[in-house]
Amino acid sequence: MAPPDRVFRTTVRPEDRAAVRRIVCSSGFFYQDEVEIAVELVDEALQKGDASGYHFVFAEIDGIVAGYACFGPIPGTGASFDLYWIALDDDFRGRGLGGAVLRFAEERMHAMGGARVYAETSSRPQYEPTRRFYERRGFRLEARLEAFYYPGDDKLIYVKRLLPRADETARQPASLPGPTAAPVC
Amino acid sequence: MAPPDRVFRTTVRPEDRAAVRRIVCSSGFFYQDEVEIAVELVDEALQKGDASGYHFVFAEIDGIVAGYACFGPIPGTGASFDLYWIALDDDFRGRGLGGAVLRFAEERMHAMGGARVYAETSSRPQYEPTRRFYERRGFRLEARLEAFYYPGDDKLIYVKRLLPRADETARQPASLPGPTAAPVC
Repeated sequence: MAPPDRVFRTTVRPEDRAAVRRIVCSSGFFYQDEVEIAVELVDEALQKGDASGYHFVFAEIDGIVAGYACFGPIPGTGASFDLYWIALDDDFRGRGLGGAVLRFAEERMHAMGGARVYAETSSRPQYEPTRRFYERRGFRLEARLEAFYYPGDDKLIYVKRLLPRADETARQPASLPGPTAAPVC
Repeated sequence: MAPPDRVFRTTVRPEDRAAVRRIVCSSGFFYQDEVEIAVELVDEALQKGDASGYHFVFAEIDGIVAGYACFGPIPGTGASFDLYWIALDDDFRGRGLGGAVLRFAEERMHAMGGARVYAETSSRPQYEPTRRFYERRGFRLEARLEAFYYPGDDKLIYVKRLLPRADETARQPASLPGPTAAPVC
């Protein structure tokens, strides 16, 4: 049997609205308003393209969107990017897909001129795996805003420097933005 | 001679686009893209109203918009607000107007359910008066993101708790949102 077909794409399609909703809901711990925000970012990208400021990486396994990341340059900064979302469908966990999506997104950001990427998350216990995900992949906790989300629920701000990678030139065309589809190595 | 007529209003008008541009430009130290962002927030509020998430306080002196603040609830939080902008026309400095605009904005945010307000600014020397403005009015520096804007230009995140004020009930109707115009006492 052939190994599953993994494809990354950066173009946004109308059917990604449903895929993003499914993925974000699958974890079962996002609030309803957070789910709506995730879908709104897809809408913005569909309507305005790159001018929306929201860029996506979708990971498809055998034609199903299994995970995605949403990121973009932070207005008013020289080279800072926000990683707005990174999420996997619960059915596709434990295959290293999250790390692959993040790596692809980081390469896109770096190719777009990004020098550092920020990821925000919550201090709630259920986000412990999220925090470990970032920490294991080179993110550093830079700030904590007490009770930002709710009483007892702080905002944590992680940052990672985006450094050139040895294999970057080969994998990332300089002509950005534009649709790309690359197999995961 | 009568003292100058000071009025605060919270409705946004099409001519506020030009007023905001004039005010933000008058300091002479905002970047062009920052000015455009300031005007875009007015556009959003004109197009979408309160659904935009951007609320305004405009201070008019003898019919001229002399300063303003832009703020709104932070999506995904229970009671956190962002103070996106607070700026005065350079011709109207030194009259306590900045503090009055901030006070009015804080009362609006509190009436809208806000428990804390965040203000972000830069570590650059030219923002020293801005930092002192916040610190003198009860804001506390809670976080610093190194090189966030540019190398050597950190983002500083200030926070202030919005507590009930003795005179608040009299000055702030509970029925929000809606247009209000109140004289400054």
